[in-house]
Amino acid sequence: MRLATLRLPDPRPDHPGTAAVRLDDAAAEAWLAAGAESGGMLAGHPVDGAADVGALLADPGWRERAGRAGGPLLEFPADRLAPVIPAPPKILCTGLNYARHIREMGHEPPETPTLFGKFTDALAGPFDEVAVPAANAGTLDFEGELAVIVGAGTAGPARLDRAAAEAAIAGYAVFNDYTSRGMQYRTLQWLQGKNLAASSGLGPWLTTAGDWAPGPRLVTRLNGAVMQDAPTSDLVHDPAALVAFVASFLPLRPGDVIATGTPEGVGHARQPRRYLGEGDAVEVSIGGLGLIRSVTRIRG
Amino acid sequence: MRLATLRLPDPRPDHPGTAAVRLDDAAAEAWLAAGAESGGMLAGHPVDGAADVGALLADPGWRERAGRAGGPLLEFPADRLAPVIPAPPKILCTGLNYARHIREMGHEPPETPTLFGKFTDALAGPFDEVAVPAANAGTLDFEGELAVIVGAGTAGPARLDRAAAEAAIAGYAVFNDYTSRGMQYRTLQWLQGKNLAASSGLGPWLTTAGDWAPGPRLVTRLNGAVMQDAPTSDLVHDPAALVAFVASFLPLRPGDVIATGTPEGVGHARQPRRYLGEGDAVEVSIGGLGLIRSVTRIRG
Repeated sequence: MRLATLRLPDPRPDHPGTAAVRLDDAAAEAWLAAGAESGGMLAGHPVDGAADVGALLADPGWRERAGRAGGPLLEFPADRLAPVIPAPPKILCTGLNYARHIREMGHEPPETPTLFGKFTDALAGPFDEVAVPAANAGTLDFEGELAVIVGAGTAGPARLDRAAAEAAIAGYAVFNDYTSRGMQYRTLQWLQGKNLAASSGLGPWLTTAGDWAPGPRLVTRLNGAVMQDAPTSDLVHDPAALVAFVASFLPLRPGDVIATGTPEGVGHARQPRRYLGEGDAVEVSIGGLGLIRSVTRIRG
Repeated sequence: MRLATLRLPDPRPDHPGTAAVRLDDAAAEAWLAAGAESGGMLAGHPVDGAADVGALLADPGWRERAGRAGGPLLEFPADRLAPVIPAPPKILCTGLNYARHIREMGHEPPETPTLFGKFTDALAGPFDEVAVPAANAGTLDFEGELAVIVGAGTAGPARLDRAAAEAAIAGYAVFNDYTSRGMQYRTLQWLQGKNLAASSGLGPWLTTAGDWAPGPRLVTRLNGAVMQDAPTSDLVHDPAALVAFVASFLPLRPGDVIATGTPEGVGHARQPRRYLGEGDAVEVSIGGLGLIRSVTRIRG
């Protein structure tokens, strides 16, 4: 099942402006097969009463409710998609987590995940342009990532075994942990470089956990050229391990997003370095989950 | 003006469970003068229709609306106070920011603030007990801080001059950036050590910006003994500078919390080190803003 958050045209003042939709699988697959550039349309049924996928997940009966979605089949272009979870209770991002890359750099796989935070204000729709003020734009970079989305919360910190952690996962999506390297590294903490306004695409939709498992390749393309290409099974801390780790000190909430880290190939690590500038198009795709794309615009 | 978020007894199912109140100044001052331990009562008028101080600040007319608060005078003990902003859009915490302490450690004052994130799930009421699972409890520490609360948002990243940054501040409160040092330092990023569930007291109330300015001393006491004592005027990056810095890359939102860093004297920096254990009471007070107190409970 694929669940997306759709921006509604001309929302009424008392309307949230978005709606959760269960995508029509045939339309989604045709759209993917034609290529996101083809101008093809997506289609889906609104999930009754859910303003977005985050609000839907807060209902313990979300699977059944989404399964029952009927009514009119809405057709829309992909740029109408909002971040699939527009306002996650928490967004936790993981530092270096791809095993092969860690070993080739001569490091030991870390015992403890490195986590940092991203704010809702840093999220972008999966096909939004990313506008960056010129003052923050010298060292922009991409990080293609697999994102895990929590479905079942916990009342407080909890020891989750592997089965319980897996059961807490609602599904998966594609993420671009958009970064200013200069801002990331000018202090010890990365937060400011990881939180440019409306920069980090999340989507295009949530694929439910029963319909997908880590393994397929993550591929990041910059203006069509492959920059990152790695199997999503090569994680030191896999989705269930990350979920269990976070749950050990914080409650889980439906709609929490945990990004699982990026493989080798980012622009900052290349010789010569390759930072993003005006008009650069970054596309992150994961087999079976779809793709997101952002074009950078330097402003003012 | 002092604004607090009060937990309502026995809330109805359709009720948010809290209410914003404008405190009665005479009662608040009598309560402070008697000492928080005295068992004295606070009192205030509910602000019509506002579920908490964060929701109130989202109304551009919040000052007038709070000023008009009338109706019944509610009396309540301090342990009924919720975190003054129960669900901030963002909580940004600042690393080392007290000038005297930086100089005595032989460092130059940093040009750029060091920022890290805290999640709503890590907040606690100003007099809540802090329950920590034993597995996370080996190296618990306090950090008394001044917190700045944003009142006026921006539509996106913005260059704010000093006057605009000051105008964006709704007020100030006391904060305890409760920390597990072991978790903070076991990876490069501090997030996990700064985000124990329901650990970081914020309150006791918001004092509006017109009624207070940085200068008065921040004093942290552990079981009555003074551990930190520094003037809140000694910040490298003062409240307006921090607000302007955050606004340079993220939109400001009403209810955003920016903690301004802690002065010297934390338990981890002492010889011998002094970590918090079962029953330890930490009180953070700032002249003119009141005090918060948390007792640590080790669980399980």
